Amino acid sequence: MPGAQTSRIREGSFVLSASIVFPPTREDRAVTDLESFHVYDTSLRDGAQQEGLSLSVHDKLAIAGHLDELGVGFVEGGWPGAVPKDTEFFRRARTELNLKTATLAAFGATRKAGARAADDPQVRALLDAETPVVTLVAKSHVGHVERALRTTLDENLAMIADTVAYLTEHGRRVFVDCEHFFDGYRTDPAYALRVVRAATEAGADVAVLCDTNGGMLPDDVRAVVAAVAAETGARLGMHAHNDTGCAVANTVAAVDAGATHVQGTVNGTGERTGNADIVTIVANLELKRALRVLPDGALQEATRIAHAVSELTNIVPYSRQPYVGASAFAHKAGLHASAIKVDPDLYQHTDPELVGNDMRLLVSDMAGRASIELKSRELGYDVSGDRELVTRVTQRVKDLEAAGYTFEAADASFELLLRTEAEGQRLSYFDVESWRVITESRPGGDALSEATVKLRAGGERVVVTGEGNGPVNALDHALRTAIGALYPEIDKLELIDFRVRILDAAHGTDAVTRVLVEMTDGKTSWETVGVGANIIEASWEALVDAVTYGLLRQGAAAIS
Amino acid sequence: MPGAQTSRIREGSFVLSASIVFPPTREDRAVTDLESFHVYDTSLRDGAQQEGLSLSVHDKLAIAGHLDELGVGFVEGGWPGAVPKDTEFFRRARTELNLKTATLAAFGATRKAGARAADDPQVRALLDAETPVVTLVAKSHVGHVERALRTTLDENLAMIADTVAYLTEHGRRVFVDCEHFFDGYRTDPAYALRVVRAATEAGADVAVLCDTNGGMLPDDVRAVVAAVAAETGARLGMHAHNDTGCAVANTVAAVDAGATHVQGTVNGTGERTGNADIVTIVANLELKRALRVLPDGALQEATRIAHAVSELTNIVPYSRQPYVGASAFAHKAGLHASAIKVDPDLYQHTDPELVGNDMRLLVSDMAGRASIELKSRELGYDVSGDRELVTRVTQRVKDLEAAGYTFEAADASFELLLRTEAEGQRLSYFDVESWRVITESRPGGDALSEATVKLRAGGERVVVTGEGNGPVNALDHALRTAIGALYPEIDKLELIDFRVRILDAAHGTDAVTRVLVEMTDGKTSWETVGVGANIIEASWEALVDAVTYGLLRQGAAAIS
Repeated sequence: MPGAQTSRIREGSFVLSASIVFPPTREDRAVTDLESFHVYDTSLRDGAQQEGLSLSVHDKLAIAGHLDELGVGFVEGGWPGAVPKDTEFFRRARTELNLKTATLAAFGATRKAGARAADDPQVRALLDAETPVVTLVAKSHVGHVERALRTTLDENLAMIADTVAYLTEHGRRVFVDCEHFFDGYRTDPAYALRVVRAATEAGADVAVLCDTNGGMLPDDVRAVVAAVAAETGARLGMHAHNDTGCAVANTVAAVDAGATHVQGTVNGTGERTGNADIVTIVANLELKRALRVLPDGALQEATRIAHAVSELTNIVPYSRQPYVGASAFAHKAGLHASAIKVDPDLYQHTDPELVGNDMRLLVSDMAGRASIELKSRELGYDVSGDRELVTRVTQRVKDLEAAGYTFEAADASFELLLRTEAEGQRLSYFDVESWRVITESRPGGDALSEATVKLRAGGERVVVTGEGNGPVNALDHALRTAIGALYPEIDKLELIDFRVRILDAAHGTDAVTRVLVEMTDGKTSWETVGVGANIIEASWEALVDAVTYGLLRQGAAAIS
Repeated sequence: MPGAQTSRIREGSFVLSASIVFPPTREDRAVTDLESFHVYDTSLRDGAQQEGLSLSVHDKLAIAGHLDELGVGFVEGGWPGAVPKDTEFFRRARTELNLKTATLAAFGATRKAGARAADDPQVRALLDAETPVVTLVAKSHVGHVERALRTTLDENLAMIADTVAYLTEHGRRVFVDCEHFFDGYRTDPAYALRVVRAATEAGADVAVLCDTNGGMLPDDVRAVVAAVAAETGARLGMHAHNDTGCAVANTVAAVDAGATHVQGTVNGTGERTGNADIVTIVANLELKRALRVLPDGALQEATRIAHAVSELTNIVPYSRQPYVGASAFAHKAGLHASAIKVDPDLYQHTDPELVGNDMRLLVSDMAGRASIELKSRELGYDVSGDRELVTRVTQRVKDLEAAGYTFEAADASFELLLRTEAEGQRLSYFDVESWRVITESRPGGDALSEATVKLRAGGERVVVTGEGNGPVNALDHALRTAIGALYPEIDKLELIDFRVRILDAAHGTDAVTRVLVEMTDGKTSWETVGVGANIIEASWEALVDAVTYGLLRQGAAAIS
């Protein structure tokens, strides 16, 4: 089976020869299954090493559920015995986790030097985790054995063989992570090979070659994996880190060279520059290498799951993330918009729907009619029939962008603009008469801001004052007080981001200021833009747009 | 130190064959120079296509200066004629840019179908930019020629040949970006090759093969680049996008296959998933491939420059970024901590100092003593002799960065901090008692700000009020009035930039605000930083630092 797969990889792609092979057709797709090719996720163990990341047992159980939906074959839950939280995770997993496709794996180390595996509490804890699979980390670099582990090269091999044998005798399936393998192979290839043999001869199913320090490039990996496969005949896996920016490429190179087990983490979390992003790996293998490594249909869940895991790990999603990032299929309009409309595949390396993502069009500097039409359709307005409207909107966008506005990151302001042009008047829940903000330093404390807003809403004139630790915060509080009774929906809206740019820096603080604010109703979020010579004025404009759009989304009826 | 660097490079690299070869010795090192190997940066053109990114002409000029310090061979400034801002950039570059090593390139398209290059205003604009190099984008994919460009295959070749010839006749050196080359080669290899020949036979120096949609994997790239090199003998370049997470690996693969020109952007900015990160590319080529592609010593500036460009583009630095990220050499203390202290090279793929970064053992927001000493020396203070001072400054910087300050782009604030720690008291030209700013909307006009500042200077108590079109502008005016008589040097100082970032977006406008201001005396400029819950307070802190530093530079004596 691995053999068949290897030859399939050769046919299915450009690898291993300088001759050009065309991409495989649907019919040539290799039919693999979760056993013949392992997708092994270590988000809960190695991924949790990321600086600033701390997962509760509850987080880990929730993430494990998402990984199962993604269809990975194995979920490494942590290091029982060494990390109390992980011991607890495996205990609760027995009753609280119902994995459909994934198998749970416990991670641990080989026995201590000079002791029996059976007497090593850390090894016992691996059995107590009661997982079908145990993944053992083993030293394969002579320098690490001698200087970090501080034992002999032979004792290290005995530690590996004993521990693997002990765990298999107790019915566990064992994978061995050969730590620092590539650096070790460079230092002493013969010893690195002895480690792989010690593991597999003792009963380990897979020897996972780890680029622990992440310093390898794809050619290095391919050459070493090919050599180890030829020398040992062992089933090989790949565990890559991204220190050269090549973690995904190194993993694909290992597969090209015969590895049939890949390790990674969702969103590439991990120590230093992180681990290989498992979502990018599987998308590349399925869409670029024609390997079926996930259950049918699972890949379409990738974007949703990657974002859900971001939420659980409380890490802001990376907009440039391959395949699943918010910008991954976003195109600046203008120049190519008309062509994109005719033939999107000319500008996409794959169909975003295959990974559950969407193509987005950004209204930018060179905005043209085509991009305005596409953007409007994306927002749910078909304006293609109304040439005059498109002309008016296009002109308006051009004028505003010339004045410093940008709509790329402010869809909500664009939608309000579109509605204004379409309906002939601006949607308005209140009419602002004037506002004032006073900010004062306070001896020994933070400065305080006080905002007064005068407006008309629901036929009434309202004058309110709000305080805040900043001027925009104070204006936000005043506005809420002013219209809260009339539009209780505003309680659902919250400002979550605020960005400021000076546009013509040539005149420093005399320059035009652009403010982008992001608001959420707890379900989705939207961005608006404001521009003005005065930063407070620009902020107020963006704030009013954000609240107006929010009330519109909440279905509030304008009361005049 | 260069010796150490060379030996580090020797240890850290493989040569370019699929068999295991030990790293090259010093003698084997390919000695290259800026001409035999091109490092071509397109941060200002393709990088500026990133969603939400909008650079002013001032930003672009500042970034170009940083790119020159990084030692890149070519800086692509933009598309004159098509983008007004870029036309302006090239105009101002003539007088305002003093590039030491980099050559400026203008980017543009081939002539329109059925017209003469000389009559094409877009082509004229390329000459008017007066750059030594012009980079032309040319279609090399039959589908794009017929469906997007909507002309014949032969006319497209004529458009390329004519435009290249016209520009070379006018003394320009021409590079040709072969757009969608890899997809085009897959669709119709013969035509893709004709495009390369049309460009080089007409006088283009380099045919840059572009993976415009970013869908390639390293083996695809290596195979195509090797085939094109064999077929055409042309000098080839690589332009990669990161849609498969392999932009850097694809670029290295192209170099392995014979490309001697690489394109990328600082921090990997760009459309969709971004362009190849030029810093990661050069670090890999220098440290893993033993190629010398930057001037000696330049690579050590990489971290500082990458972070400075992040601040200029107002993009949050990516902590997991290879080589230069804040986490790139961060190790969670614990398991390996002692071993790391004893023998850090066991746990690092390269020496962080080679890229100007530092290893961090404890979770902390800033690097250690080494960078403090380095930065101090850079500012003209040799503190290496005073261990206690270095300890105090390092601790102070760590505390401040934990509170949200950043010093990568605020050398002036760092220098004031350093002097304060060295002299035991803060340099002060005036003592602020309190301040207040009122900002008011005005019917039919821009909002107006009025600032009142109370301070003591030269033994006098001063209370002054200043107006401005923004709060910071008003505070600036008030401060100038308050101390202008005592320190006339302040008239030479002008605020030229002002950037704001919300640090904890989780609480929107309640979050901590970081303000960076840039001030100039007409000769040089300097940046300072302020942090606070209130944006006006943070701005005031940065403003006071900027003025204090400016007066210090002017040689003003503090009068108390």
